[in-house]
Amino acid sequence: MPLKNKIFSTRISLIRRKFSDYKIDGLIFFNMNNIFYLSGFTGSDGVLVLGENRTLLLVDGRYTTQAKIETSGMEVIEYRDKIKGIIQSVRELDLKYIGFESGSITLQLYNQLIGKLNDEVLMPLDDELKLLRACKDEAEISLMKKAAEISSAAISSLISEIKPGCSEKDLALQLEVIARRSGADQLAFEAIIASGENSALPHAKPTDRKIRRGDFIVIDFGVKYQGYCSDETCTFAFQELTAEQKNVYQIVQKAHDEALAAVQANVGAAAIDLCIRNIFGRKYEKYFTHGTGHGVGLEVHEAPRLAPASQDVLEAQMVVTVEPGLYWPGQWGVRIEDTVLVKENSCEKLTKMDKRLVIIE
Amino acid sequence: MPLKNKIFSTRISLIRRKFSDYKIDGLIFFNMNNIFYLSGFTGSDGVLVLGENRTLLLVDGRYTTQAKIETSGMEVIEYRDKIKGIIQSVRELDLKYIGFESGSITLQLYNQLIGKLNDEVLMPLDDELKLLRACKDEAEISLMKKAAEISSAAISSLISEIKPGCSEKDLALQLEVIARRSGADQLAFEAIIASGENSALPHAKPTDRKIRRGDFIVIDFGVKYQGYCSDETCTFAFQELTAEQKNVYQIVQKAHDEALAAVQANVGAAAIDLCIRNIFGRKYEKYFTHGTGHGVGLEVHEAPRLAPASQDVLEAQMVVTVEPGLYWPGQWGVRIEDTVLVKENSCEKLTKMDKRLVIIE
Repeated sequence: MPLKNKIFSTRISLIRRKFSDYKIDGLIFFNMNNIFYLSGFTGSDGVLVLGENRTLLLVDGRYTTQAKIETSGMEVIEYRDKIKGIIQSVRELDLKYIGFESGSITLQLYNQLIGKLNDEVLMPLDDELKLLRACKDEAEISLMKKAAEISSAAISSLISEIKPGCSEKDLALQLEVIARRSGADQLAFEAIIASGENSALPHAKPTDRKIRRGDFIVIDFGVKYQGYCSDETCTFAFQELTAEQKNVYQIVQKAHDEALAAVQANVGAAAIDLCIRNIFGRKYEKYFTHGTGHGVGLEVHEAPRLAPASQDVLEAQMVVTVEPGLYWPGQWGVRIEDTVLVKENSCEKLTKMDKRLVIIE
Repeated sequence: MPLKNKIFSTRISLIRRKFSDYKIDGLIFFNMNNIFYLSGFTGSDGVLVLGENRTLLLVDGRYTTQAKIETSGMEVIEYRDKIKGIIQSVRELDLKYIGFESGSITLQLYNQLIGKLNDEVLMPLDDELKLLRACKDEAEISLMKKAAEISSAAISSLISEIKPGCSEKDLALQLEVIARRSGADQLAFEAIIASGENSALPHAKPTDRKIRRGDFIVIDFGVKYQGYCSDETCTFAFQELTAEQKNVYQIVQKAHDEALAAVQANVGAAAIDLCIRNIFGRKYEKYFTHGTGHGVGLEVHEAPRLAPASQDVLEAQMVVTVEPGLYWPGQWGVRIEDTVLVKENSCEKLTKMDKRLVIIE
């Protein structure tokens, strides 16, 4: 179900209705994911300017044709110089109080912009826009389910390819090929295939290290399908495992399962994180060196954030990851991650791999 | 030839020697490519703080182990909160006049940072640092040659796979698999395989469109090898072409060849761009909707910029692309691109595909 143009105009209308709350008469978007969300434009650079009645999509010459094909209900304007293009649009729409994303513009671009403005006022709206894309509509959820199906099926297919002597890089390439042949447009992020001592690195890149008996193999993988990401992590044992490895796996799995059981609307994101830290307890929590999870959508990491200091509260239709892990540098690590859809009184797993311990023979 | 730790300490020393010119006693790097260039750290987030004698690499918990493995001669410091981490480092090193990259920090992060500083002064050094990585050393050139060899060989291998009914996506996947099996670590950017009317889009993404007789097929492809990028574009005719298509190809080729002949040290980047525009002339220049080229290195697009308004001057050891193209929206387009190493009196092609017109049968 591709996203229809009507969806974009509805999203823009919802934002325009908040102009008076925000005390603005215009809003400039620089974040390309927000621009896609509001326009359907898939280019890598551009600026979206919302006035009270008109919408201008500013692009450079590389993207003029593409922007006209991809969008409707807005004016596509080609610029040679981005700053001049923005200033002309601001004057054209006669904007005075202009909202913008201070977290999506460099200080340099901002300084260039204010150097050219007269008495217009730029108003940072990062807090107000932070959760713009956090709650997904049905069309988005449908695409995210498809993305998750593709990536889970690819991980499942890869298991039979994991053999002694395979390198992490070999497996990463096979995994990507399987996923793209099954309909993935691209990866959501570079696949992590981390074996043995590399599994202790939460963000390892695939290396030439070959899989060996006794390894834990962490596979953290996601694809993009029509712009939307999936994100899932499985940790497999290869041929054998020690009692200690088995014990740690079970602790991480317990943390994962209990955190998932706690995910529902109106729960604080920090409470989900705390649930995991409580299960790890004093003995293990120091080996859990990252946050519990994050929103997923057009970006693989987006709002909300599930971490100790997070002020976010889960809402129905949010899609978030839950990914506890424990890592012993130089030795090994375990991480288990699902992407879930938050519902009123529960959550629904979008990623499909069974997270019980698998020993690959 | 992997980059050795000595290279990183030499690069840092070269920057420290300019501290007095820059009127600073410390320099904070936020740009992850610059951080890799100066430290060897390959993580996706971190901050590098150079004092006059000490170097601090600040990372979050995901990257502590990795940063310690990848770097030497610097102190790896783990932060929970990036801003607090930076402030502590500034105090620890007793910095007062601190250079930074205003083009690599968001306005939001900057505002958070200055909110916590006392009488320290932040000094934007974007102009001074713009060409930091532009001139490549021998170790870098060696890696870039390898990257270019891999991607050119992959394009060459792909030709025999281009058959009627293949989709752009099929070919993009095959091209990537060939390149990665030949040693590419990853792609430098999503491959462009643009056929028929899609070839008129300079930054097209591969679609399900199937290759047909009479198509131009634009293949814009590059890989990363040990961090370094390649970038090359070939336009092939499929089975037949019109006299007009042939004529346009030859004009683009002439522009490409003459521009390459003009590339050497001490020539203005804008002059190379002008060389191409002069050959296109009034009849064609309006169909050339992007700049002529860009530097290549750790990023596929980096300084210098070859475009009409560019103030950059080519220097020996720079690596740049030259990529003229002509595009008729809705019909077809042609682009020809090589990545070249600038020398004192000429340039050396790193990318290897012959750019004469090929009609794939």
